[in-house]
Amino acid sequence: MNSYNDDAPIAAVATVSGESALAVIRTSGKDAVALLAEVFSRPQKLREAPGNTIVYGWILEKDAKIDEVLVSVYRSPRSYTGEDGADISCHGGTAAVRGIMRVLRKAGFRDALPGEFTFRAFMKGKLDLTKAESVMELVSAKTDRGRSHAVGRLSGGLEQEIQGAKTLLVQVLAGTELFLDYSEDEFSAPEAEGRLPDRALAESALVRLRALADSYRMERLCHDGALAVIAGRPNAGKSSLFNLLLKEDRSIVTDIPGTTRDWIEAWISIDGIPIRLADTAGLRDAGDKVEQIGVARSRELLETADIALYLIDGTRGIAPEDAVFLQNQKNPTIAVWNKLDAAALPENGTDYPLLGISAKTGAGISELKAALVSRLTDCSKAPEGWGYSSVGIATERQKTLVDRATASLEETLTLADRGQPLDLIAPLLREAVNALGEITGEVSAADILEVMFSKFCVGK
Amino acid sequence: MNSYNDDAPIAAVATVSGESALAVIRTSGKDAVALLAEVFSRPQKLREAPGNTIVYGWILEKDAKIDEVLVSVYRSPRSYTGEDGADISCHGGTAAVRGIMRVLRKAGFRDALPGEFTFRAFMKGKLDLTKAESVMELVSAKTDRGRSHAVGRLSGGLEQEIQGAKTLLVQVLAGTELFLDYSEDEFSAPEAEGRLPDRALAESALVRLRALADSYRMERLCHDGALAVIAGRPNAGKSSLFNLLLKEDRSIVTDIPGTTRDWIEAWISIDGIPIRLADTAGLRDAGDKVEQIGVARSRELLETADIALYLIDGTRGIAPEDAVFLQNQKNPTIAVWNKLDAAALPENGTDYPLLGISAKTGAGISELKAALVSRLTDCSKAPEGWGYSSVGIATERQKTLVDRATASLEETLTLADRGQPLDLIAPLLREAVNALGEITGEVSAADILEVMFSKFCVGK
Repeated sequence: MNSYNDDAPIAAVATVSGESALAVIRTSGKDAVALLAEVFSRPQKLREAPGNTIVYGWILEKDAKIDEVLVSVYRSPRSYTGEDGADISCHGGTAAVRGIMRVLRKAGFRDALPGEFTFRAFMKGKLDLTKAESVMELVSAKTDRGRSHAVGRLSGGLEQEIQGAKTLLVQVLAGTELFLDYSEDEFSAPEAEGRLPDRALAESALVRLRALADSYRMERLCHDGALAVIAGRPNAGKSSLFNLLLKEDRSIVTDIPGTTRDWIEAWISIDGIPIRLADTAGLRDAGDKVEQIGVARSRELLETADIALYLIDGTRGIAPEDAVFLQNQKNPTIAVWNKLDAAALPENGTDYPLLGISAKTGAGISELKAALVSRLTDCSKAPEGWGYSSVGIATERQKTLVDRATASLEETLTLADRGQPLDLIAPLLREAVNALGEITGEVSAADILEVMFSKFCVGK
Repeated sequence: MNSYNDDAPIAAVATVSGESALAVIRTSGKDAVALLAEVFSRPQKLREAPGNTIVYGWILEKDAKIDEVLVSVYRSPRSYTGEDGADISCHGGTAAVRGIMRVLRKAGFRDALPGEFTFRAFMKGKLDLTKAESVMELVSAKTDRGRSHAVGRLSGGLEQEIQGAKTLLVQVLAGTELFLDYSEDEFSAPEAEGRLPDRALAESALVRLRALADSYRMERLCHDGALAVIAGRPNAGKSSLFNLLLKEDRSIVTDIPGTTRDWIEAWISIDGIPIRLADTAGLRDAGDKVEQIGVARSRELLETADIALYLIDGTRGIAPEDAVFLQNQKNPTIAVWNKLDAAALPENGTDYPLLGISAKTGAGISELKAALVSRLTDCSKAPEGWGYSSVGIATERQKTLVDRATASLEETLTLADRGQPLDLIAPLLREAVNALGEITGEVSAADILEVMFSKFCVGK
């Protein structure tokens, strides 16, 4: 059984595998450099290399050359993990990488567990838990805004915010306990009932915690993105709109392969929010069996959508099928009147608010984008001034702990309002402080840590 | 217009993009390190860094942090390109990589053209053309054998072999020209007609060139692999055989996504040859429209197959459809009698040689693999002793030039046999020498080089 809790030499491929110029294999742990030297063409040079230097040579399997590499040597404590280690930069492609990993295993390295490098960095005090988590957010960020927020946390922004709130509560707790100590020994003052010392500090901490909790939904939206599905009857202009949104927005993240037969998808970024945009097959009662499957898949996709853009062909007006769809659609939906260039919006108004666009001329597209962002974010209270530099919470773990701290603190204040004695209140305050300490990792059980780090990708 | 022929600072992502622990952005060119320092959190440290050292810091866009990185600094001439350069090791994922590339472009780097780093390395004399080509082979090698052969060329094995043959021919040519010089000036000896000086050397060079030409097909097979398609009527055991071959061979290279609805594919390695193994839909006259499409796609796939494994259900014997298929199949095909555990091979023999297996028990599988390799390689004359350490030619460019040298040399010998004068023969010899020089890049027009390097991947 491999465990996170040792300093055994570990190795993992840290780059995506595939045909590329370079790949990097990361190693760390006890004797990592010495072990690597045993399968290296210039063992002494490598063994004696100081930290933060690069050694050129070949990885060898007995006498056979496996690959020509550059080895970056790191020495404890000046390394990512805090341990001795080396990054092997080798030729990309699967064969070289597999060959080197095979050699490393024979030399005594074991395969790193997911997140094990970052776990070791945390255990050595190189980073706190919020920074560790931000590493994985950074890796999976889809837009520049997502990246920027993760970088904020990696730089310690969230850690500072949590520590700030915690410092306030620790002050309140200290005052409370001091009071309890005195009151037990010497007097039973009216303050012992209901008067929370430094109540203003506790309230200020609560405001900060609530702002953090509020930030969660926007942070998740910014990171995970939302699924927006374009639907409508055949020839409503779905593909034109899809292409227009793609073309307008130059920061397409990636096409998703393998789904083109049923629908087409691409990631776009609107106002820094990653949007997975899907163009579905036209919704109609198809006679052709293959097309029927396509339509069924479109309907499934619509059910999982965060938002639907339902296109109406303006030149044909609202057909009965359109009305049925809009009535039955449960997820947030924007009804879009397309072909505004050829057909004006109905004058008498309709049962549904219609947003007029022309996928042909581009008219109304920026309004559509604004409506999309507004519908996606309107259930959330974006903190005042929330933007590129704001600090928010990004993981479910952080959210749960912030909520726990908030609940304890709210109960503290409620009890104080009711005039409950401080010895009932103090334990609640302590719970809030502990929850905040757990966010940064000051107090965390080993098994909780393992669960957290095992969600990381290998090589991190 | 960007051109390969400058030393402008260039940058490219050198790893596969996607979610991973690390990504590497490679830079090279005039002032590369100084330009990078301008967008780096510790500019002076970076500017003053000696070659082969690593500097930790942040990539900045004005004051905003883009990503936390490690910069490996290389100084001319001790670098891959021979120029000054730096590899930026940043967090994986698309957002960080795009952010850094954006900053680099603003700082004055241009996007590297495909293969431009290796092109510069060639122009600076860091490697010859056969080594440069081996870099891309290494990246795209699918099996350990393919990797090993590419490493052999990267280590200079092919360069040496070409130079060896060339040295022989240069000797013959020198002798011939010396003779011509003398004969013109002083005497017309009988040697001037038909007697090639050092004929034995020319013959020895010819043997070596022919062996190289012969190696090409095996090298391509080793590198590109072959498509093997499993076909047969429904329930002949196709999927069982597919899974068995996959399971037996632990070195699966990769699954190919996006095709599973019509057929399933995976790369396996048999005897170091990468085999793209495809399991097709059962061939029958399907009533269902979706299945019809599947069957049609299976037939298309069979037409492009390098080899087909046609499975016959032994318990049902050879059906008329089986016979029709085997008669009409144009590509190499192995007729496989499956379910040997339940039904022995027909005693009276058949029109087709049958190979008996049991996908259930595994009987006959190693014989099937041997037959597969033998059928794939039997059109080629594998050079004597061809194995992990042999030297062969790997690209069409090399093959064309070896063929040209061989043809010139053969004509040289034919003319000599016919007693033609040496002044007719010498130009042919010179052509052979030039063709060999072109293989290693001693003589190559700039436009030929650009065509060659533009086939590389970006970042290499």
